[in-house]
Amino acid sequence: MSRIPWARHSIHEHQSHLGWDQTLKPVLTVAPGETVEFFPVDASGGQLTANSTVDDIAQLDFARVNPVVGPMYIDGAKPGDAVKVTLLSFAPSGWGWTANIPGFGLLADQFPDPALHIWKYEADLKIPAMYGPGGRVPLKPFCGTIGLAPGEPGLHSVIPPRRVGGNMDIRDIGAGTELYLPVEVEGALFSVGDTHAAQGDGEVCGTAIESPVALTAKFELVKKANLAFPRFTTPGPVSRHLDTKGYEVTTGIGPDLMEGARTAVSGMIDILTRQHHISAIDAYLLCSVCADLRISEIVDRPNWIVSLYFPRTVFE
Amino acid sequence: MSRIPWARHSIHEHQSHLGWDQTLKPVLTVAPGETVEFFPVDASGGQLTANSTVDDIAQLDFARVNPVVGPMYIDGAKPGDAVKVTLLSFAPSGWGWTANIPGFGLLADQFPDPALHIWKYEADLKIPAMYGPGGRVPLKPFCGTIGLAPGEPGLHSVIPPRRVGGNMDIRDIGAGTELYLPVEVEGALFSVGDTHAAQGDGEVCGTAIESPVALTAKFELVKKANLAFPRFTTPGPVSRHLDTKGYEVTTGIGPDLMEGARTAVSGMIDILTRQHHISAIDAYLLCSVCADLRISEIVDRPNWIVSLYFPRTVFE
Repeated sequence: MSRIPWARHSIHEHQSHLGWDQTLKPVLTVAPGETVEFFPVDASGGQLTANSTVDDIAQLDFARVNPVVGPMYIDGAKPGDAVKVTLLSFAPSGWGWTANIPGFGLLADQFPDPALHIWKYEADLKIPAMYGPGGRVPLKPFCGTIGLAPGEPGLHSVIPPRRVGGNMDIRDIGAGTELYLPVEVEGALFSVGDTHAAQGDGEVCGTAIESPVALTAKFELVKKANLAFPRFTTPGPVSRHLDTKGYEVTTGIGPDLMEGARTAVSGMIDILTRQHHISAIDAYLLCSVCADLRISEIVDRPNWIVSLYFPRTVFE
Repeated sequence: MSRIPWARHSIHEHQSHLGWDQTLKPVLTVAPGETVEFFPVDASGGQLTANSTVDDIAQLDFARVNPVVGPMYIDGAKPGDAVKVTLLSFAPSGWGWTANIPGFGLLADQFPDPALHIWKYEADLKIPAMYGPGGRVPLKPFCGTIGLAPGEPGLHSVIPPRRVGGNMDIRDIGAGTELYLPVEVEGALFSVGDTHAAQGDGEVCGTAIESPVALTAKFELVKKANLAFPRFTTPGPVSRHLDTKGYEVTTGIGPDLMEGARTAVSGMIDILTRQHHISAIDAYLLCSVCADLRISEIVDRPNWIVSLYFPRTVFE
């Protein structure tokens, strides 16, 4: 992983923690305006490697899953402020994994068995990552987990995201994005990890291309921003790596958005298995790493539409 | 509105109906493979014009809202088949309207008063439509309502979409898209209307740029397709008219997707009013015509993330 010469501080993978807790001791203190490089480990916490097999999924120790590096204290940050994080650069490692973990994911009831796909990709991201003989997935790295310590005392699971951010898994929190996070504790206590080489909106199977990726970010404060929830600005288009050949789109129509999302994903798995002769579990994992869940309409009572957009470039 | 020379059949605005009913008499019968041009009226059924004012919203007769032209009988279509509709061309009229209709829309509780914006735009779509002094909305016409008669007997409201399609308001059912609709009755009984000059995913205020647009489509049958829900294929990128300058993005994080969507839209209204000094109702209407609701993650139990993507090109 390439180092970023202008960063004055580094946080390394051994400087990590599991879960959020405002009493964790900071591993670094910075002033607003400073730039820091981070070297997080992958979301398995190092339990999976480029040589892992599906048997290793059954052995996963969930108590060690989704570590983040940090926390980092930002001088002058107070509750009510926002931390502005400008994501400057990402240096991917060249390998990653996507798994179906039993009990986890949008269609956990339909896919009870563990599955694992190991990706090896060119770290310069110039060519898509291969999935079996036919699939080519364009890559766009980002951090799945990025956030601040919650104001509520105690240790909080890393799995759900909160208003202070955390495990947001938003595929556009990548290079050039400016992210604003609401501060709830003195010093903000920033941590980051769970880096992904690619993911679709929804992360439907529960995992992305989970991949160690070094990153560099600049930190500023917006005093008294009083943000309700995280927000961000992307510097340019967010889908150009995927959209050249258009999309296959499936829909789910009905009064429940969650059920609509499940229907749209099931419909796409059906299409991909028939058109490309891949297994249902492969189709499900592929949807998670490159297909986008959109809410097409949310006003034509009582039926809303959730659509899944699968980029045709993956198979064309 | 330009005519399409190769279409052998036309259905005009007086050949319209309100609601779906399998006993409606077809206005035209076509064989698979034929091309038809349609001249739908706008979603107000002609009650609003380019000279309307907000007072006309209060006078709207909802019994006349959202007419569709048709139905058209397709020879050989049987329950279990799919109608493949290839949308060939759209010829927009140059005017449209966007309204807040009391009681309708994602934030109906927060916006109880009627509002109306009349758009005038170049019918060749080469320049964005203006919204007040600063807003420029790129246009991409499509049909909001496109569907088949439901198999269930009786008259069905046109407002909710169903598995046979209808008022789907999916912004990418535009030129070049191939749409597959499940057939539930003999002859399929196709109708179309509610054309829009532009809309974001979600159509959050309940209306798009409602605009009369002529369109031409080709009809084919896929025998025994046994589709669960509509699906479609786009011929190329779907956001290039919007994405050049990136996006402002707000999030809603929590255990309910509907509430997450409401939070994300409220957050964007807050940003737009502060950054661009427009009113909250103007920001709400703008979000409806150009901002996209996406489900960023739907697996990190118990909190999901819905994000609203507002294209920065509108104000830059």
